[in-house]
Amino acid sequence: MIRTAIIGGSGYTGGELLRLLAVHPQVEVTMVTSREYAGKPISLIHPNLKGFYTMNFTNFSIDKIGEKADVVFLGLPHGVSLNYVPKLLEIGLQVVDLSADFRLKNPEVYKYWYGIEHPYPDLLQKAVYGLPELHAEELKGAKLIASPGCNATATILALAPAVKWGFVGQMKFVSDVKVSSSEGGAKPSEGSHHPERQNAIRPYEADGHRHAAEAEQELSLLANKQVEVSIVPHAISSVRGAMASVHMWTETDMDDMDIWKKIAEFYRGKKFVRIIRGGIHPYPDPKYIIGSNFADIGFANEKRVRRLTMFSAIDNLMKGAAGQAVQSFNISRGFNEDEGLKLPPLRPA
Amino acid sequence: MIRTAIIGGSGYTGGELLRLLAVHPQVEVTMVTSREYAGKPISLIHPNLKGFYTMNFTNFSIDKIGEKADVVFLGLPHGVSLNYVPKLLEIGLQVVDLSADFRLKNPEVYKYWYGIEHPYPDLLQKAVYGLPELHAEELKGAKLIASPGCNATATILALAPAVKWGFVGQMKFVSDVKVSSSEGGAKPSEGSHHPERQNAIRPYEADGHRHAAEAEQELSLLANKQVEVSIVPHAISSVRGAMASVHMWTETDMDDMDIWKKIAEFYRGKKFVRIIRGGIHPYPDPKYIIGSNFADIGFANEKRVRRLTMFSAIDNLMKGAAGQAVQSFNISRGFNEDEGLKLPPLRPA
Amino acid sequence: MIRTAIIGGSGYTGGELLRLLAVHPQVEVTMVTSREYAGKPISLIHPNLKGFYTMNFTNFSIDKIGEKADVVFLGLPHGVSLNYVPKLLEIGLQVVDLSADFRLKNPEVYKYWYGIEHPYPDLLQKAVYGLPELHAEELKGAKLIASPGCNATATILALAPAVKWGFVGQMKFVSDVKVSSSEGGAKPSEGSHHPERQNAIRPYEADGHRHAAEAEQELSLLANKQVEVSIVPHAISSVRGAMASVHMWTETDMDDMDIWKKIAEFYRGKKFVRIIRGGIHPYPDPKYIIGSNFADIGFANEKRVRRLTMFSAIDNLMKGAAGQAVQSFNISRGFNEDEGLKLPPLRPA
Amino acid sequence: MIRTAIIGGSGYTGGELLRLLAVHPQVEVTMVTSREYAGKPISLIHPNLKGFYTMNFTNFSIDKIGEKADVVFLGLPHGVSLNYVPKLLEIGLQVVDLSADFRLKNPEVYKYWYGIEHPYPDLLQKAVYGLPELHAEELKGAKLIASPGCNATATILALAPAVKWGFVGQMKFVSDVKVSSSEGGAKPSEGSHHPERQNAIRPYEADGHRHAAEAEQELSLLANKQVEVSIVPHAISSVRGAMASVHMWTETDMDDMDIWKKIAEFYRGKKFVRIIRGGIHPYPDPKYIIGSNFADIGFANEKRVRRLTMFSAIDNLMKGAAGQAVQSFNISRGFNEDEGLKLPPLRPA
Repeated sequence: MIRTAIIGGSGYTGGELLRLLAVHPQVEVTMVTSREYAGKPISLIHPNLKGFYTMNFTNFSIDKIGEKADVVFLGLPHGVSLNYVPKLLEIGLQVVDLSADFRLKNPEVYKYWYGIEHPYPDLLQKAVYGLPELHAEELKGAKLIASPGCNATATILALAPAVKWGFVGQMKFVSDVKVSSSEGGAKPSEGSHHPERQNAIRPYEADGHRHAAEAEQELSLLANKQVEVSIVPHAISSVRGAMASVHMWTETDMDDMDIWKKIAEFYRGKKFVRIIRGGIHPYPDPKYIIGSNFADIGFANEKRVRRLTMFSAIDNLMKGAAGQAVQSFNISRGFNEDEGLKLPPLRPA
Repeated sequence: MIRTAIIGGSGYTGGELLRLLAVHPQVEVTMVTSREYAGKPISLIHPNLKGFYTMNFTNFSIDKIGEKADVVFLGLPHGVSLNYVPKLLEIGLQVVDLSADFRLKNPEVYKYWYGIEHPYPDLLQKAVYGLPELHAEELKGAKLIASPGCNATATILALAPAVKWGFVGQMKFVSDVKVSSSEGGAKPSEGSHHPERQNAIRPYEADGHRHAAEAEQELSLLANKQVEVSIVPHAISSVRGAMASVHMWTETDMDDMDIWKKIAEFYRGKKFVRIIRGGIHPYPDPKYIIGSNFADIGFANEKRVRRLTMFSAIDNLMKGAAGQAVQSFNISRGFNEDEGLKLPPLRPA
Repeated sequence: MIRTAIIGGSGYTGGELLRLLAVHPQVEVTMVTSREYAGKPISLIHPNLKGFYTMNFTNFSIDKIGEKADVVFLGLPHGVSLNYVPKLLEIGLQVVDLSADFRLKNPEVYKYWYGIEHPYPDLLQKAVYGLPELHAEELKGAKLIASPGCNATATILALAPAVKWGFVGQMKFVSDVKVSSSEGGAKPSEGSHHPERQNAIRPYEADGHRHAAEAEQELSLLANKQVEVSIVPHAISSVRGAMASVHMWTETDMDDMDIWKKIAEFYRGKKFVRIIRGGIHPYPDPKYIIGSNFADIGFANEKRVRRLTMFSAIDNLMKGAAGQAVQSFNISRGFNEDEGLKLPPLRPA
Repeated sequence: MIRTAIIGGSGYTGGELLRLLAVHPQVEVTMVTSREYAGKPISLIHPNLKGFYTMNFTNFSIDKIGEKADVVFLGLPHGVSLNYVPKLLEIGLQVVDLSADFRLKNPEVYKYWYGIEHPYPDLLQKAVYGLPELHAEELKGAKLIASPGCNATATILALAPAVKWGFVGQMKFVSDVKVSSSEGGAKPSEGSHHPERQNAIRPYEADGHRHAAEAEQELSLLANKQVEVSIVPHAISSVRGAMASVHMWTETDMDDMDIWKKIAEFYRGKKFVRIIRGGIHPYPDPKYIIGSNFADIGFANEKRVRRLTMFSAIDNLMKGAAGQAVQSFNISRGFNEDEGLKLPPLRPA
């Protein structure tokens, strides 16, 4: 059993990790920290977990964690993980960081989007971008996994086949993302107040969403040239699930079957990617993924105007956060990729 | 008092017309037809209207309608209005048609999208496209108003300033629309079943949505050149409200203030268009329009990559259906544009 | 035009008053105060009202209000109104208080529920409990109106005919109320955070809800004996609307028609009460009241076990707050009861 | 591996069974029937299950099922199961019937509620009412399990400790149930149409809900005297989850701790019952059970008026349908009660 600590365990991502790890056959959760709730039972904050954990939240102490854990999942805010990662690696722990702190390879790009010099540019190089569909090989044995979040994951998975196979000439994309409220985390705000959020269709950070940087990094690698990506998220009423729609103009007439084949080829053997096409539900919908780690990928091809849309649907707390982290962790340890992630999506929900 | 008949009054658009006309000072509703509910009280089908109408639904008889009405609002399915309009005009009635039957000017385009030859191509020319922000002058005295629906209205209003002022060089656009469930009408279906629709983020008709034809027609007129438009609707959880997001790449660096000024100039004096910019709610959101005839227009400008998004938010049953029809009717009769449409949006809702 | 001030205008009740008064033909809003947003435009906080008010929020100053207003609507928290009402009355203003501060007649009862001695017991006597269906006569010319809130209103209107006509012997009732999120006001909290509130069916204050005191007071008056009432609210997903279900055991077999007649007799001539019975929608549902001031009243009678349920559905911000306050105000001034309240409910919403 | 057939597998209960059995270590699903979708892939109808089942739906043939299955789960409408059960038992299959056909012991009561003579009164006696918290012993080795549904389960679990321990003198109860839309099944209807169902708070079958009969049967057994129960369901906006609130008047002052102890004693050792008390979430809420088989039980005690409310929260498709059936099946086979049911509830959802 791998002794596992969750640092920052009171938020939604922490809760989702606890949900998954409660039944992961190779994992024993030995420590869950929360500055705010130290000393209080886990089920006080995560009422769904009543009966699954008897331990309390503790304060995070970097001195003791070495004796208690083999791996640490960091569910800390962006800019906070930074301070702990080097020390955690130094004392020999594996780190799965769910923040954005180690996702970008280029320190200049980091500085542009986050406004500060990255203090550990060497670790940026060492970290593996934890999107297993692109980096499964590098994840094996990885000591530092920078696990990507929801909007970047959805956008990259929607666009990856298109930029790889060159569906379009112009390497500029806008990812129109529809996101659920749990993506914003567990802290209440004006915008998350139920009467304001329910029934909203509300763009936010529409002048420049910083997770576009990750999409540009990963897609440029795939395309082998510079790709420009803009992400425009829209807050809607659902609690879980995110959908990226990326519209593009193709240079030539494209056949549906050809597109399908290319996507299928790109994602061949990827356990958590399902290609959606035809039937009663011809396009992906995050509704049919709830609670699971799947990414459903699909497309629509309007030949009349040579418009192609790539769709990608995920559960923002699973493939967009905790599930993906566990998937990368599994690969890093040589476990089956879907260990602890086998239950089908919930429907209807 | 103008005697008013509503043909096809049992659906959501019919119900919304009844809601509005119940308090319209110049209108007396004299007849409401429904094949399915003839003989039954209006409030049986529209329980919100209990106490506002004592009359029953009747069967539609073209012979008697001339004695009972001065104007007819047609809330019939596409392809059905066709059969009644010529006769209604002939007996001297004004017709406000909420179907798509008379919205397109070019019979070829009609045939392409609707699969049949239009039987009355001359009436296509005579009909006024009932989007008052573009056709207020022609609406004065109009005998046949072809009142546009939700997706076309949202798309056209989002793009109109952009194509008029040439924000972008390329005249090709994808309108990513997020739509509420009432847009689908009052008839239950697999897709509208609550457990399936709630929490969905579901693209539909994504291979080619036919109301793009209206957008192309109207925007080409404005741009004075051919504009290509593709509409990709996404069904989400809300009951009311639609949001069009149209992303485009600008050719040069654009300044926010310049964009704002152009939009404001374009919509100057338009009572039902509000330009949204800055503040706590920097972008339009249909949530803040519920129950009203407003279209809220806004934009986001990501200079880094020269990406501009135009947003347009409407209530699909108001500015996207019944409200717009009443607005056009008001103009056609020389009434104040907002007669019967004065109440502010409901919030929160 | 009656010059009207709204004190505490940034919350949902304040916003709803502003929505209604924007089109009230006898009212001119001359002042809207907000400690938090003084100096800021009303539409910044109430984005739905953009275009309806150009004024800014101001600070509340009791010295200046006499020059600016004839009537004051108080949208302040419980315990705050207390401090202003005597002075406002003294300078000759009419006061419509939407807090609970002046709703109870008995200072002992007030002390029991609110934990403090009421400083103005004489004003408790003078205030008129602003439920027009019970106190229309006393409201005429009233200087101090204590306008009741959502749970009390729904409970009293459900039970009033039953206690008046003695449907049951035992004068003890539990009102099981299902409430929407806007009832909790505009301030975010852990419980109102969208991911937590959406899909909740969450009892709260279930050990003793203090607005039961008002229900006991009003129903005891009607029954002419002591009535005990317990209110158990359940927070559910809707944004607007509340439903009270009160289950009781009848002493004898009761006939549906007799019950209906008694209820109809009780509410005869009440403009905002609709008796719901039979048809496709045989029971009240707040869904069909959204945005309006109606209370829909109905019942279910299970003869097998002599169980009777009284239902009452209202819009919590209308008949449960702002709409009711305007209704009482209208009566106090001799206007039509429904002035400014004429638009039918919104549907679907 | 136990070969398992699901008869009537295209509905929500069938889908939920398939979701659970896909990962049940002792079960192999060998046949799934659907009259409507025979020949079509399971994932066409249950898009969440894409990748989990490759088989198609088949037509149900009682002749072949004996070769293919050891146990049969019947997800058929009430009145249809009746026709198959005797034959299925005869050919040696174990039957888990999720309909109401074999839940009542008394044929007279069956006739009262279902309007027909039960054709197999002997089987009524033989069937075990599959509520494991009451009938675990009888379930061991059971050949015919009559698995109860949502409203009865929630009501019985809320009331069981109260009638067992005699919290109240009067053995008459009204269970006020708030139910989610998936409880109505997968077939669209007027009432389930999203624009009508969303935001509804709509009582239904309020004149007498027939599953009260099961509650009366089971609770009378526990109380050892006749118990009368009335169930009043209210349709609300959620997709999953049901909450029963049963209000009662206690004869004496009761202490919270005593009540808690009695409930805890009653449910001691029951794996799927969690007693909720105190903390941030002092009462049950189905929101924190989504996707799991738990029943969360709690109470509120208003001493002022001696009012006690018992609450019971379940996931209607799990403890209220498929999960409970699997739990009973597990017990009948001597497996761990929670085999295939171990994953914690989803949150937030």
